[in-house]
Parts: sequence; C-alpha cells; structure tokens
Amino acid sequence: MENRIYIVGMGPGREEMMTREALAALEQSDVIVGYTVYLDLLSGRFKGKELLSTPMRQEEKRCRMCFEEAKKGKKTALVCSGDAGIYGMASLMYEIGKEYPQTELVVIPGITAASSGAALLGAPLNHDFCVISLSDLLTPWERIARRLKAAAEGDFAIVLYNPSSRKRKGYLARACDILLSALEPGRPCGIVENIGREGTKTGICTLQELRDREVNMFTTVFIGNSTTEAIGGKLITKRGYPAEQA
Amino acid sequence: MENRIYIVGMGPGREEMMTREALAALEQSDVIVGYTVYLDLLSGRFKGKELLSTPMRQEEKRCRMCFEEAKKGKKTALVCSGDAGIYGMASLMYEIGKEYPQTELVVIPGITAASSGAALLGAPLNHDFCVISLSDLLTPWERIARRLKAAAEGDFAIVLYNPSSRKRKGYLARACDILLSALEPGRPCGIVENIGREGTKTGICTLQELRDREVNMFTTVFIGNSTTEAIGGKLITKRGYPAEQA
Repeated sequence: MENRIYIVGMGPGREEMMTREALAALEQSDVIVGYTVYLDLLSGRFKGKELLSTPMRQEEKRCRMCFEEAKKGKKTALVCSGDAGIYGMASLMYEIGKEYPQTELVVIPGITAASSGAALLGAPLNHDFCVISLSDLLTPWERIARRLKAAAEGDFAIVLYNPSSRKRKGYLARACDILLSALEPGRPCGIVENIGREGTKTGICTLQELRDREVNMFTTVFIGNSTTEAIGGKLITKRGYPAEQA
Repeated sequence: MENRIYIVGMGPGREEMMTREALAALEQSDVIVGYTVYLDLLSGRFKGKELLSTPMRQEEKRCRMCFEEAKKGKKTALVCSGDAGIYGMASLMYEIGKEYPQTELVVIPGITAASSGAALLGAPLNHDFCVISLSDLLTPWERIARRLKAAAEGDFAIVLYNPSSRKRKGYLARACDILLSALEPGRPCGIVENIGREGTKTGICTLQELRDREVNMFTTVFIGNSTTEAIGGKLITKRGYPAEQA
C-alpha cells in the first residue's frame, strides 16, 4: 500500500471522550476531512491542519476527497461522530476504496451513542441489545418495521438512533406503535439528548409516554427489555434472568 | 451524596484505546477494584494505588468491596473490560447501590468489543445490529435461541460475545445451526481474537464454516446481514438498502 487513511470515530463530541489512539491519528494527519459540525468541535485543537468538508448528504464526495488527498501524499484522516463503523462512513470508504487499491484504510473505533447514552441513563444495555436507526433515507420503512418487531419478539433492549428529523416527524410514534403491539405500555424507556455536548439532558418514561415525546436529531432513545427497571432515576437492565423465569 | 464511585470501561485492553476521561477517573482514584486480568493490564501505570480484586465469578463481592471502600472516604473506581454497561458490572452496581443511598455512581463508557472488533474487520456493523452473548450462566439457553432466531428474522448484523468457554464447548455450533435454519450457508462472517492485546487475529469465513471454527473466550464473532460482502479481506455491511429491494 502506498498510502493510508485513518477513519476515526470521535465519540459523542467532547475531546475527553475520544480515545488516545483517535487523538493521535488526528494529530499526525496533514488533512482532516469531516462534516462541518464535527470539524468545528475539533478546530480549537487542530489549528495548523487543513480541515476539509462537504455539506451534509454529500458523503460520497467527502469520501472521494479523502482518497484524492491521500493520493497527493498527504496524511489524511476522516472523522465521524460516535463510531465510524456504526452508521458512519467506514463502509462507504471501503466501497469507494475498490477504486483506490493503493490506499490502506484503518478504522479507529470511537464511543458510539449506545455506550455513551447508556452510561448517562445508568445501565440499560447490560444484556443483549439491538441498535436500530429510524432513518428511512437509505432503508425502506418496511425493513425498519420488521426489525422493530423482531427486536420486541427477541426481548432485546433496544437503542434507536435518528429517532426524528425535520422531515421525519412522527417516526418515533410510529416505531412505538409497532413496539406497543408486542410490549406492555409501562415498559421502562429512556431518552438522552446532546450526549457529551452542551445541554445534555436525560429522561426516563414508559413506552406509552415515549410515543408522544418530542425528540430531535440529537436524541438517542432506549427501550428496556422485560427485566429493565427504573431505579432511583436510572434505567437498569439486569445482567441475566432468574433461573425460574426460563 | 456523600461519596462517588466511578464505574470505568477500559476498552479492549491497550491503554491507547481508553478515553481520556476513563484514564482521568482512574488517575484521581485512591482504590481501583477489578478482575485480576484487567488490573494487571493497568498496574504499570497505576503503581501508587491500592488495587483490589476478587476471583472470577465473585462479582457481587467485588461490587460490595467498592461501596465499602467508598464508605471509608476513599476515592474508588471499578474497572471492567470493554464498556462497563455492556455485559459489565454497571447494572449489578446499581442494584447493590440500593443499600448504599449515600453513594453516587458514575458510569464512564468504554470501547466495547462490537466497536473494536468491527474496526479490525472493516465495517460489519455499518447498519442496524444485535449484540448477543452465548453465555448461559445467567440466561437460559432457550432465551438465547429465541434471540438468535429474532436476529435472523430481522436481518440484523449480529455480534456474538462469549461464543465459547471451557465449560461451553459447542455453543457456537449450536448458535450457527439456529442461524443456518434461516440464513444462507454462504453468509459472510468474521472472527476477531484478542482485540487490543497481544496476538490479535482476524478471519473471514462463511456461516457454514463458522459453525466448525475453534473459538475461545477471547473471540468475538460477527455475522453479516443480507447486504454484507467480503471485500479485499474485510467484512463490509452496506449503510442501507437499494431502493428497489424494498
């Protein structure tokens, strides 16, 4: 391989929540490519570097930008929020990478919202869980619905990413309606907003209440499994099942 | 609250893969409690501190140890490998914490094997996924089987934690048999061993081949969804579905 691109997960936003290897990869880069919002979070620390961006939705262009910079001989890193391999750009980079066989890709993991949001709520994911995105930008709603049904059927704790956006009002209510057809309305749930950024907020509610909660694109939603309890304002999922419940 | 315990996820093992806030929480502690293997990984850095441990399986005792140390006025941290809230001790700490209302618990997230293993394999979790433990120590096998079926039904990418141990030989084969009743035998899968430690190994195979692979308690297993491909030795799950596949 002639050159290498680091695909870096920066975690929820605060620099303290990045790993040392993620910081080191950015520090040794000449060019950092990313969505504007994430570059802004980093710009204080990486003043001397070339910071390149494309508008939202232009993910393919952003990936090609990385390969072209690396081709020029520049040490290049692509940053994604959370973990670059969980709803991030890692997969698209590998696909476009087929056209750039001289470039090696190295993914550096970061703290994803399932982990960082769970920590703020207590321990809602302390047993088997599913992560589901409610965005139907690239996935037909029928598939999302099928996954929600399967997650309820399997008694998984569930994390919902992208529960809403300006164009997708009402998606969380639709998802809750699907879950409510299988789960009890009192099932404990949690909401986290702006994880690792200014204005972090958490809340605990029932599945029925969740249905009508206002959420935005910075919200992550947690739905408990059959063992989950709200204990002292925290959402706690047991690490197993009592033997007699088998 | 009179005192506070940090419940710290140390990631897969290498210090570079810890977050700065996890390192800071350990640095400011007087006592670090954890399973011996993890304390050994940290002992070089934290020489001046009291390092306390209990043998494996004595998790409840280890938790109580934390609360008792904190009660004495010592700054206390409990370390878990990966993320403390994902098959870690966070949930048990909150349960035992009911008896210690004067102690505040703060969970500091870490990189879990789903993230760190996925990064080594490429991008197998770049869409909705499930995390399932094959350990039936605290969960009846019937529940695990039901979750595997649900995960296949939902076309989730799947991560298997604890695929084997000395007492649970053959569990991965049993899990694969359940998945093979719903998924094609050629479904791309991946294996990672000793993530972030000496002797890291990765491998790509089909679901049929996975059935007969030797795994151990340091292996994490990845099973692709219907879009997953092996590209140049990496396991890549598409970030969406083509519209016509709806």
